[in-house]
Amino acid sequence: MSSQTSSVNGNCLGWAATDESGVLSPYKFTRRNLQNDDVSIRITHCGICYADVVFPRNKHGNAKYPMVPGHEIAGIVQEVGPNVHGFKVGDHVGVGTFVNSCRDCDYCRDGQEISCEKGPVFTYNHVDADGTITKGGFSSYIVAHERYCFKIPEGYPLASAAPLLCAGITVYSPMIRHKMNKAGKSLGVIGLGGLGHLAVKFGKAFGLNVTVFSTSLSKKEEALSLLGADNFVVSSNQGEMTALAKSLDFIIDTASGDHPFDLYMSLLKTAGVLVLVGAPSEVKLSPLSLIMGMKSISGSATGGTKQTQEMIDFCAAHKIYPNIELVPIQYVNEALERLIKRDVKYRFVIDVENSLK
Amino acid sequence: MSSQTSSVNGNCLGWAATDESGVLSPYKFTRRNLQNDDVSIRITHCGICYADVVFPRNKHGNAKYPMVPGHEIAGIVQEVGPNVHGFKVGDHVGVGTFVNSCRDCDYCRDGQEISCEKGPVFTYNHVDADGTITKGGFSSYIVAHERYCFKIPEGYPLASAAPLLCAGITVYSPMIRHKMNKAGKSLGVIGLGGLGHLAVKFGKAFGLNVTVFSTSLSKKEEALSLLGADNFVVSSNQGEMTALAKSLDFIIDTASGDHPFDLYMSLLKTAGVLVLVGAPSEVKLSPLSLIMGMKSISGSATGGTKQTQEMIDFCAAHKIYPNIELVPIQYVNEALERLIKRDVKYRFVIDVENSLK
Repeated sequence: MSSQTSSVNGNCLGWAATDESGVLSPYKFTRRNLQNDDVSIRITHCGICYADVVFPRNKHGNAKYPMVPGHEIAGIVQEVGPNVHGFKVGDHVGVGTFVNSCRDCDYCRDGQEISCEKGPVFTYNHVDADGTITKGGFSSYIVAHERYCFKIPEGYPLASAAPLLCAGITVYSPMIRHKMNKAGKSLGVIGLGGLGHLAVKFGKAFGLNVTVFSTSLSKKEEALSLLGADNFVVSSNQGEMTALAKSLDFIIDTASGDHPFDLYMSLLKTAGVLVLVGAPSEVKLSPLSLIMGMKSISGSATGGTKQTQEMIDFCAAHKIYPNIELVPIQYVNEALERLIKRDVKYRFVIDVENSLK
Repeated sequence: MSSQTSSVNGNCLGWAATDESGVLSPYKFTRRNLQNDDVSIRITHCGICYADVVFPRNKHGNAKYPMVPGHEIAGIVQEVGPNVHGFKVGDHVGVGTFVNSCRDCDYCRDGQEISCEKGPVFTYNHVDADGTITKGGFSSYIVAHERYCFKIPEGYPLASAAPLLCAGITVYSPMIRHKMNKAGKSLGVIGLGGLGHLAVKFGKAFGLNVTVFSTSLSKKEEALSLLGADNFVVSSNQGEMTALAKSLDFIIDTASGDHPFDLYMSLLKTAGVLVLVGAPSEVKLSPLSLIMGMKSISGSATGGTKQTQEMIDFCAAHKIYPNIELVPIQYVNEALERLIKRDVKYRFVIDVENSLK
């Protein structure tokens, strides 16, 4: 296997966090040499995910510095290994939240590598099979096994593609799993950030009746007119909440802040499901919220390669584009601060190709 | 509609709670006259459910005294109304947790009356359509619309049938809903009381690998040899618990006491489900327990008429019999105290026909 070293003379320029402040600064390191099944990708864009706040600040206690974040990667193929069949130089391509897996378990064989029995190797801050620490997309290029690369259809903007690789698949996957791609069903979306605004767009593309729950009125007009939601409810408005009792088939909960679950469970129909994709500090609810009406609370994290490609193709076919704020890499620390304050409509994307020099 | 009155000269002898002590004593009241679609049932047996502790003691704040508990009713048809087609005098018959519903919503039309949009009318302590308060099976007879009566196959002991009407359907229903009737899957059962021991029996009848989790070793021998469980784990044994990580497809949680959910969720495979059928005081867990591995926690309460009949027939066909302790009605208060202390293997059944005079 090739080696990956950190060096001022490295072949790849990135921005890295070097301590728990999570502040990013320029950092040179070396990507592995191209292997037979590898694709080398010149990164043009990388989305900023809330994980890029959490991991660099060592909130999970497993930070490996220097850490180069970024797992919503879009770019252009610049080189392919001799065994690569799916991609050629010049293709538009994406890389998401993982870049390796065992490739041998039932989940891997079924294209559900996110559930790999040995665990997928995440795109950054993770030990890869060759012992190196993975480094993400806040960098000039990346080398990945073609299995973990996705085709971005011609004509679909690379900047728009980036947020699909984490935010997009994170909301698409549970919607498909819970059969929410059937027109006429009713969807609730808690939180209108990067994930939530895409859940609204998928919901409308699937023909659902979509209600957005938000803590503030400020996004109402956009939710209804720009994103096409059918209904917008400020979650502190008890009357409006109660009026929705037993009306929703499914709720996708993208909120990272703590919030009362019993109230949202009461809005679900019999056998309804609330799926957590955000990460509040805890889930706490009354057993009766589950027992009465056979309701469920579930969780989900991104998705496998098969479904990710399906989701990208669905977005291209249905002209679903994330709403993004394109920023230069030099703005990344300010963007992270704004993300914490939820001050973004609706996803930051780093304009890597025009700013990372 | 007929009227129902409480009277020392009533036509039905029962045992009722008259205040929040929940202590039961003999009580005469009047059942409604037989209506066209009604079946009148001479009650031979009635199971004692944990609900018969909770409701008479007004734990939910909605007690209507005098309250006659009991919703695991088995008996013999003594009279039928002119429109009754499914039952004739002498038939063995059961009545479960509800005795009425709207009969007109999608759920009712599908035999899922437990999810009736207007709510089912519970067998006791509930206002029926005619304004009377329902009274349960700790009594000499009951009158119910035939829709809410179940056929107990000839040869299936009535005493054994009683616990099926609540405990049995409560564990059977979520197992079917979550496709746990497929041989080879792995089932965890938390708690080995009335519900838990039936979950083990259904699990074995379905061909599952069954692990029982209990707080005490005292039930180990019986769980393995008498009930046929494959594995028994004392839940405080950290090593044995950890060894089961990611090994179970499904957990049915019958425990009423508080217990840590994160640990049990870690025992589930990817996309595994824990279903609550007991009622701890709260459900509290880490979002990561749901998000990592797309796991779910769900709830369930009894089941509709269609599935209840199916379950009874399944028990008869597979010779599944609850393990019961048959007690006279005069022992009911002591039985309730023992139930609180979980001192029963595994369900008390009141021998109504031989003791209620």
